[in-house]
Amino acid sequence: MVQNKSLVLAKHPVGYPVPGSDLITTSSEFDLNQAPPPGGLIVKTNYLSFDPYQRGRMRAATGLYTTGYPLNSPITNNAILTVLSSDNPRFKAGDVITTNAEFSEYQIITKERAELEQSPGGGNAGVRLLKNPLGLDPKLFLGALGMSGLTAYSSLYEIGKPKKGEVIFISAASGAVGQVVGQLAKREGLKVIGSVGSDEKLQYIKEELGFDAGFNYKKEKPDEALNRILGELGEEGLNIYYDNVGGEQLDAALGALSTFGRIVSCGSVSQTSKKPGETHGIQNMPLVVGKRLTIRGFIVFDPDMGGKYYEEHQNNLQKWIKDGEIKIKMAVTDGIDNAAEGLVGMLKGENFGKAVLKIADL
Amino acid sequence: MVQNKSLVLAKHPVGYPVPGSDLITTSSEFDLNQAPPPGGLIVKTNYLSFDPYQRGRMRAATGLYTTGYPLNSPITNNAILTVLSSDNPRFKAGDVITTNAEFSEYQIITKERAELEQSPGGGNAGVRLLKNPLGLDPKLFLGALGMSGLTAYSSLYEIGKPKKGEVIFISAASGAVGQVVGQLAKREGLKVIGSVGSDEKLQYIKEELGFDAGFNYKKEKPDEALNRILGELGEEGLNIYYDNVGGEQLDAALGALSTFGRIVSCGSVSQTSKKPGETHGIQNMPLVVGKRLTIRGFIVFDPDMGGKYYEEHQNNLQKWIKDGEIKIKMAVTDGIDNAAEGLVGMLKGENFGKAVLKIADL
Ligand SMILES: NC(=O)c1ccc[n+]([C@@H]2O[C@H](COP(=O)([O-])OP(=O)(O)OC[C@H]3O[C@@H](n4cnc5c(N)ncnc54)[C@H](OP(=O)(O)O)[C@@H]3O)[C@@H](O)[C@H]2O)c1
Ligand SMILES: NC(=O)c1ccc[n+]([C@@H]2O[C@H](COP(=O)([O-])OP(=O)(O)OC[C@H]3O[C@@H](n4cnc5c(N)ncnc54)[C@H](OP(=O)(O)O)[C@@H]3O)[C@@H](O)[C@H]2O)c1
Repeated sequence: MVQNKSLVLAKHPVGYPVPGSDLITTSSEFDLNQAPPPGGLIVKTNYLSFDPYQRGRMRAATGLYTTGYPLNSPITNNAILTVLSSDNPRFKAGDVITTNAEFSEYQIITKERAELEQSPGGGNAGVRLLKNPLGLDPKLFLGALGMSGLTAYSSLYEIGKPKKGEVIFISAASGAVGQVVGQLAKREGLKVIGSVGSDEKLQYIKEELGFDAGFNYKKEKPDEALNRILGELGEEGLNIYYDNVGGEQLDAALGALSTFGRIVSCGSVSQTSKKPGETHGIQNMPLVVGKRLTIRGFIVFDPDMGGKYYEEHQNNLQKWIKDGEIKIKMAVTDGIDNAAEGLVGMLKGENFGKAVLKIADL
Repeated sequence: MVQNKSLVLAKHPVGYPVPGSDLITTSSEFDLNQAPPPGGLIVKTNYLSFDPYQRGRMRAATGLYTTGYPLNSPITNNAILTVLSSDNPRFKAGDVITTNAEFSEYQIITKERAELEQSPGGGNAGVRLLKNPLGLDPKLFLGALGMSGLTAYSSLYEIGKPKKGEVIFISAASGAVGQVVGQLAKREGLKVIGSVGSDEKLQYIKEELGFDAGFNYKKEKPDEALNRILGELGEEGLNIYYDNVGGEQLDAALGALSTFGRIVSCGSVSQTSKKPGETHGIQNMPLVVGKRLTIRGFIVFDPDMGGKYYEEHQNNLQKWIKDGEIKIKMAVTDGIDNAAEGLVGMLKGENFGKAVLKIADL
């Protein structure tokens, strides 16, 4: 018997979730030597992903594309795990797998799930063997080589339609999705502008990732910053806005886009944890007509998104990361006891890079 | 010599333009017997169109797709005119033509313009012979068979992509564009919901045009009205929102759209005449991601819009109007002395149907 700790949703948060109150750590006994259920697996958790959409799942009623997390159960997300014992022919002890898993140190995977192949775009409860032919850091498969990277890759091409010489603006530019979008856009020959929430991140995207320009939205108003930067770059306007945050930056981007500009609506993390009445009303929507803008929302597991780009994303990104052409920064929280702080920290922008929880290194 | 009256922009309006102050009627002498300029025409104005985009052209700086009206000159818009005398082989006295013309009773068309074919989607200064093989009311060629109808036709198909059984919501539903969109959508087998600014208009779209439901946005809040109506129709949400007005109705539509819904961004007439600080900030933009919405703005003379659908629009609409399958309501203002009131009235919603100015019947 071992103690098996989990991160549990105890209450529906109002505003930012509060560790110790909305999100608590519980512990229960787990028998490591128990037989796996018929057709199932016993697994040990190595890494779990922290993602902004998890905030949405902490609401009482969610609807849309995800269901709400049940109260008093461990929350779940994409994970990398090691098989301890298996009653399923697809897997054997020692295999490293990815699936949507509980925030628990140990867990059981049922036959039903062990038999289901994880869909390429994610979004089902299936399981996949981690394929890491180039021997890359396995944590990457929760970020640049996982859901965040596939999000960046598929939506930039499918919706953004980048063309050499165009100008793209990316919010949350040092984050899991943003850092990949920015580097892909540089590869395609675009001028890349990023916004971030600290000077350290700003320096990083400009000096390490090669962005052409950027600003710290906590120090400079987004509309003024975009005006300033476009002037400095000698450009009239943006062609693409990759929107990770919504709110004031979306408004500023609408103002700064050129005719026939595209907005890739990826997320609105600046609004998700706002209390009712505190959200930002977008003033610039009337510009959509005269500028002929297209704004398109997506979820990575939509049919024409992640699945369509899965192979291409894996093949290219693994190679480019291996070659050092694309750099990936990760923000690792250590241990389940710190999981709540890590998750909430990411929502507040305290992460610098793709946020993951490490439970046990591989 | 005759007196030739014109509607002139005297000042840039703040809020709604004020007749007699921002928009004034002037008069000057015009020689009906003068020779046309070399290669040009002398024409008499029959009908002029009132369109919401003209409000945008009254600003000091406009940019985007139209230029501002110069101060102290007659404003311009699509018109139907009769050729009085011609020095151009394309036209002869008595021909009925359409072009972008001055709000003046008589005017001169230069050689340069007389030689230019009016582009199918509008948007250039060229001239076209009115082709009216079915002998329809010529005023229709400023509305359902002109720019408004082509706007409705092209954007509904190109952006709305209507499918039988879907639900569409149209704002300014009794207006020039709205009444055509609604009837086309009915023909395609959609359930059609319209919003209007009076009970008389509401009764019209439901009883005369066969809309499935509607509401008067001055009496019922748009979000509550859409909820009520969707419940009554037994539908979960909207598939298309045809946005003529922006503001509060756009916000309500974002809330009521189903996954993969489309917004055809045609205009935002509810915001155009608002003073700074009075405009409506859109709260529901974060729903674009989870619902995977597409919002697309257009201008009828964009390459893939009006021009692409011009022939189809003329062929079908002329026939359907002749057969009585599609009904068109027009709001006619009589005489240049009433032009300012007519134009401002349309911006305020006092028009019931496509607003035009009649100067002299054909
Ligand atoms: N549509 C999809 O399928 C899909 C898939 C994955 C992710 N997403 C979305 O993509 C976005 C980025 O996700 P990610 O995983 O890459 O997260 P991330 O960027 O690694 O982390 C979240 C970041 O959001 C920024 N942020 C937090 N509060 C903010 C505020 N008030 N204003 C501006 N920025 C704020 C912070 O960066 P700064 O310090 O720079 O502010 C923080 O680091 C999220 O909106 C997420 O929901 C969508
Ligand atoms: N993108 C393009 O190429 C293109 C081309 C043509 C037209 N448009 C746009 O399409 C829209 C409709 O134009 P239209 O020519 O068909 O005009 P219209 O509907 O015939 O006339 C304007 C109508 O707007 C409504 N309105 C005025 N103020 C409003 C407010 N505060 N809230 C809600 N509705 C209000 C009024 O109808 P109610 O009494 O029902 O409120 C009024 O009758 C406009 O936004 C116009 O700019 C765009």
